Amino acid sequence: MAEIVRLADIARYEGREVTVRGWLYNKTDKGRLQFLLVRDGTGLIQAVAFQREIKPEAFEAALRVTQESSIVVTGLVRRDARAPGGYELGLTDIQIVQLAEDYPITPKEHGIEFLMDRRHLWLRSTKEWATMRLRATVIRAIRDWLDSNGFLLVDTPILTPSSCEGTTTLFETEYFGEKAYLSQSGQLYNEATIMAFGRTYCFGPTFRAEKSKTRRHLIEFWMVEPEMAYADLDECMAVEEQLVSYIVGRALEERAEELKILERDTAPLERVQPPFPRLQYDDALALLAEKGEPLPWGEDFGAPHETIIGASHDRPVFVHRYPARCKAFYMEPDPQNPELSLSVDLIAPEGYGEIIGGGQRISDLALLERRLAEYNLPRQAFEWYLDLRRYGSVPHSGFGLGVERTVAWIAGLQHIRQAIPFPRTLGRLYP
Amino acid sequence: MAEIVRLADIARYEGREVTVRGWLYNKTDKGRLQFLLVRDGTGLIQAVAFQREIKPEAFEAALRVTQESSIVVTGLVRRDARAPGGYELGLTDIQIVQLAEDYPITPKEHGIEFLMDRRHLWLRSTKEWATMRLRATVIRAIRDWLDSNGFLLVDTPILTPSSCEGTTTLFETEYFGEKAYLSQSGQLYNEATIMAFGRTYCFGPTFRAEKSKTRRHLIEFWMVEPEMAYADLDECMAVEEQLVSYIVGRALEERAEELKILERDTAPLERVQPPFPRLQYDDALALLAEKGEPLPWGEDFGAPHETIIGASHDRPVFVHRYPARCKAFYMEPDPQNPELSLSVDLIAPEGYGEIIGGGQRISDLALLERRLAEYNLPRQAFEWYLDLRRYGSVPHSGFGLGVERTVAWIAGLQHIRQAIPFPRTLGRLYP
Repeated sequence: MAEIVRLADIARYEGREVTVRGWLYNKTDKGRLQFLLVRDGTGLIQAVAFQREIKPEAFEAALRVTQESSIVVTGLVRRDARAPGGYELGLTDIQIVQLAEDYPITPKEHGIEFLMDRRHLWLRSTKEWATMRLRATVIRAIRDWLDSNGFLLVDTPILTPSSCEGTTTLFETEYFGEKAYLSQSGQLYNEATIMAFGRTYCFGPTFRAEKSKTRRHLIEFWMVEPEMAYADLDECMAVEEQLVSYIVGRALEERAEELKILERDTAPLERVQPPFPRLQYDDALALLAEKGEPLPWGEDFGAPHETIIGASHDRPVFVHRYPARCKAFYMEPDPQNPELSLSVDLIAPEGYGEIIGGGQRISDLALLERRLAEYNLPRQAFEWYLDLRRYGSVPHSGFGLGVERTVAWIAGLQHIRQAIPFPRTLGRLYP
Repeated sequence: MAEIVRLADIARYEGREVTVRGWLYNKTDKGRLQFLLVRDGTGLIQAVAFQREIKPEAFEAALRVTQESSIVVTGLVRRDARAPGGYELGLTDIQIVQLAEDYPITPKEHGIEFLMDRRHLWLRSTKEWATMRLRATVIRAIRDWLDSNGFLLVDTPILTPSSCEGTTTLFETEYFGEKAYLSQSGQLYNEATIMAFGRTYCFGPTFRAEKSKTRRHLIEFWMVEPEMAYADLDECMAVEEQLVSYIVGRALEERAEELKILERDTAPLERVQPPFPRLQYDDALALLAEKGEPLPWGEDFGAPHETIIGASHDRPVFVHRYPARCKAFYMEPDPQNPELSLSVDLIAPEGYGEIIGGGQRISDLALLERRLAEYNLPRQAFEWYLDLRRYGSVPHSGFGLGVERTVAWIAGLQHIRQAIPFPRTLGRLYP
């Protein structure tokens, strides 16, 4: 064995003998030349076993090794412009750690359910690998931006005694004799923590027991929710467009190779720069009517409407001031027109739909009490939330950004289920 | 209004008039001089209203304002060595945003249940504030270290069809007609993702429906779980001690002020440097016997044993090679003595107990199949996990670090419940 290196760092080792520990991704048999495509989790390299230059046991191992067997290979790092990644390994030794038999995912086409049943293996395939690396960068970029812009991470609970977005889509569990529900949003808790820390965010898994089987829905998904004390709707939009532009910029900068593997046209992503267009709800309705998809005033948009609005702009677009009745109980009414709420959604371009929902929250105690009653929400469970309006209430705003929708958009995925390592969808809880 | 600034940045504004948006933390009435202690979430400042220098409405507001009212204050930033934080604000204006009445948490002593019922407000108190800021730094440090050392964040699911650590402490929910359980660990999924990415980690909430009411247990807690392909027990320990030393170093560097608020003696933290002592389980038993707390061979340690082991060392201490029967089914046996497992716990000093559990996992298919049978685990649910030994199995190791135990230790807390914003304990699901 020579020095053990990661393929991500291979360029540093040109002309040296190194050892790589990984798996066989693919093999091409040219008789006395065996071309092994080796992956180690950080990259891929072509390793060449030439019968004349390698000891017989090692060449025999090269002949015998199968797809996805674990192998430790040693060889000389050579520059080779034709090789994927620009380098190849002239093998001097191969050790098989474990010989895999009949790996089920072959280069031929497989159906989506077949692949999803084998998600624990499918993640090894280059496109899934590239998507998950992009996902990690998206998450890292979100945290970096928030941490550098005065937001403090304050985790909110998953097990909660009450619901935020309505009780029909809640997962319920028994909590030592009480009923508990899986959180659909950390927002209400964020509204408490901003009064202690100024600007906060929570970032965790979120659960919606929705019976929708669309390409934009997951049962379990990750969401980041920033919240700001002393901030109005305009500031909320300003933060959103800065954050989203930063995420896309980091993805382009750090995951160029992965975006190439995903065959993503990056031109539309390069255009994601602030300011984003701002449409009032009424303007969006006019746009929909013009595009032949009219909607009655007061209705919320569905996927087809979002697609039209998104496709009419070359970057993400804000739609703000929705009718109060199509948004949640805690939305601050527009002082200009109390039928409208100071709410805002951010719609991604290229048909990816809503990636952010947010707005300004009610700060007045009496109004919030009325809203709880109007929405038939159990007052008792919201007493602590009402306290936030009793003791030092301030104008405040915030939003939730869906990680998988953002990843699906940046990666250019057809379906959100490939934007998360182990998707939970209607009918899928395995593996 | 002057330029709006954050108290965290106040030193930059010496000699200038600024506006601070925050809350009244405390007030001292000296007649014509009103001393307002103002907090804005990023820090505290003493703001002085001098009747002669301020317009009457503003002075009247200073007289009238109550604890935790939201206020916007404008004044001149003056250096003052006697003031907390080193600066004070000579007020020129005060606006009350919302006048709080009868804020329930007063400077007098309150019982823990009283405070926990008001956790949404209690977080505003300086010690809780300092703890949560320290917590955010601990989490940030963990991610920074892992992201810079070749680990990829790959999220694992919360809703799972089977259990990892035994079914008696699982929360159950209905998943569209199937039974689902809240994850107790992402480890099994990490073992899949390392085969795709080399080194990975998951970092999320974890649930254990344990009926323990100790100062070290939470029902819902956060855990980071790094996992490494091609890594043995020794490498696992090396990574753990580097990570833990880095976390403590960052906390000391970035949260000196918070540690002071918490009255934490930092001398024991300064000593947290690698290498950490490594004790075999047998050595630990000998130590316990010597300290008058003998334990029969084969038993796992309880809190009193961990306290003794931790107190006998000046930095965190590894205990490795526990008897196989006191650890989980997936632990690799010690090739020197198959009665032992290649497991390791890291025990914090100063009585804080186990903060990490980990070790090397079984890589052999036949052995893992036997273990599943011995532990009476449902083979069907583990088929995908067995696949990891069929297709490119490698020696691999990993561990789980409990965030709240780590925060409690670094902060010097008496009880883990104050290390998380909204604790879930036996009998507490509110707020």
